[in-house]
Amino acid sequence: MNLLLLSNSRGPDGRYLAHALTAIATLAGPRRRALFLPFAGVTMSWLSYTETVAEALAPLGIDVRSLDDAGDIDAQHAALHDAELIVVGGGNTFQLLKICRERGLLDVIAHAVRGGTPYLGWSAGANLACPTISTTNDMPIVDPRGLTALGLIDFQINPHYTNALPAGHRGETRDQRIAEFLVANPDRTVLGLPEGDGLQVTNDTVRLCGPFPARHFVAGGAAGDVPPGTVFDLAGRPRAS
Amino acid sequence: MNLLLLSNSRGPDGRYLAHALTAIATLAGPRRRALFLPFAGVTMSWLSYTETVAEALAPLGIDVRSLDDAGDIDAQHAALHDAELIVVGGGNTFQLLKICRERGLLDVIAHAVRGGTPYLGWSAGANLACPTISTTNDMPIVDPRGLTALGLIDFQINPHYTNALPAGHRGETRDQRIAEFLVANPDRTVLGLPEGDGLQVTNDTVRLCGPFPARHFVAGGAAGDVPPGTVFDLAGRPRAS
Repeated sequence: MNLLLLSNSRGPDGRYLAHALTAIATLAGPRRRALFLPFAGVTMSWLSYTETVAEALAPLGIDVRSLDDAGDIDAQHAALHDAELIVVGGGNTFQLLKICRERGLLDVIAHAVRGGTPYLGWSAGANLACPTISTTNDMPIVDPRGLTALGLIDFQINPHYTNALPAGHRGETRDQRIAEFLVANPDRTVLGLPEGDGLQVTNDTVRLCGPFPARHFVAGGAAGDVPPGTVFDLAGRPRAS
Repeated sequence: MNLLLLSNSRGPDGRYLAHALTAIATLAGPRRRALFLPFAGVTMSWLSYTETVAEALAPLGIDVRSLDDAGDIDAQHAALHDAELIVVGGGNTFQLLKICRERGLLDVIAHAVRGGTPYLGWSAGANLACPTISTTNDMPIVDPRGLTALGLIDFQINPHYTNALPAGHRGETRDQRIAEFLVANPDRTVLGLPEGDGLQVTNDTVRLCGPFPARHFVAGGAAGDVPPGTVFDLAGRPRAS
């Protein structure tokens, strides 16, 4: 397997995917045709979302085509089967999962990626690679008919990780939400990925890349920071490097 | 119907439900026995959660008993049927809905409340009264097997409403999340209830109570502030007062 799972798309300067171009180039290798899943996009059209991603990847010479333009469901399955590079964008994770489930894409994507097709996902697209979408920050605007996702990795990512709350706000902090997840799912590990960071997954090895420490959560234990370059197994356990 | 739906439980001073005692006394009238659903509680025991609520309502002379202590499922249904006052606490909305669905409580609660039993809910307990839990802020830590909820009101509440983000954070704002909900659910209205506010529902009339304006969202239109005292119908449309 060959995955790049990013916390987010826009850098502090507002530029789209610019912070991740080097890592995306490494993921893509010689491949120059990307098949893009825009289904997490809700308030923008899938066409304009695809154009945004195409512009962002143009400096790498990568051509971006929307899976939604591939034809009917059978044609979409065939396009995924033949894809050089699968790209799944962020937005609303519930809508992304709902559409993937309705169109029968989950098994097709998982089969292609396990067979070697590189996978790039950010935000919702990173959560889709997890066992479930249970650690998304998104609002459940639609019913995805179950929370199980691709399961390409065996731990959960929390994208856009921060524990900050707006001043004076009394809602749960992110750490409290993740603690709730671990009470309900004590066998899972959660990695809180701050904006700017990503995970490079190569076969059964996961490496934290980006400028910031991530936050590592397990049931019954204290959460801890892990520095960039930390290597994990597919269950999210840090490995001796 | 007779409902009090609160955005949150703790005031800025940290005291539990203290900001809402006057409104709770109005809701309860002469009733002095409350049946409490602690099922949204995840990181605290349901016993200690019930004790916290009992202490908070003690100044009103209201005795609080946990539905979980009522016996088996049939006994729990009977307890709801006989309840003087149904109280549903906050916590994780997905877990609350999951347990209510598994135990077959939704229809029993809705029947009792439509028959006149007062209902008090805060945060997750306020979202449970809506058509679905699709406007919760919570993390989907468990699968509730569908998002449909009590449907006592015909619009959606967003509790703990704020549009603020921590400085430098690039995740979606609350307004962006609610805009996504309205794209996916254009027939619904959403009321963003800031902390400290609540809704008093009397038969088919909904009144905004509390010190702060709420935020009123409809599909395709600009969101607007509505002042305390505003009266809505059960679909969340402001009425001429």
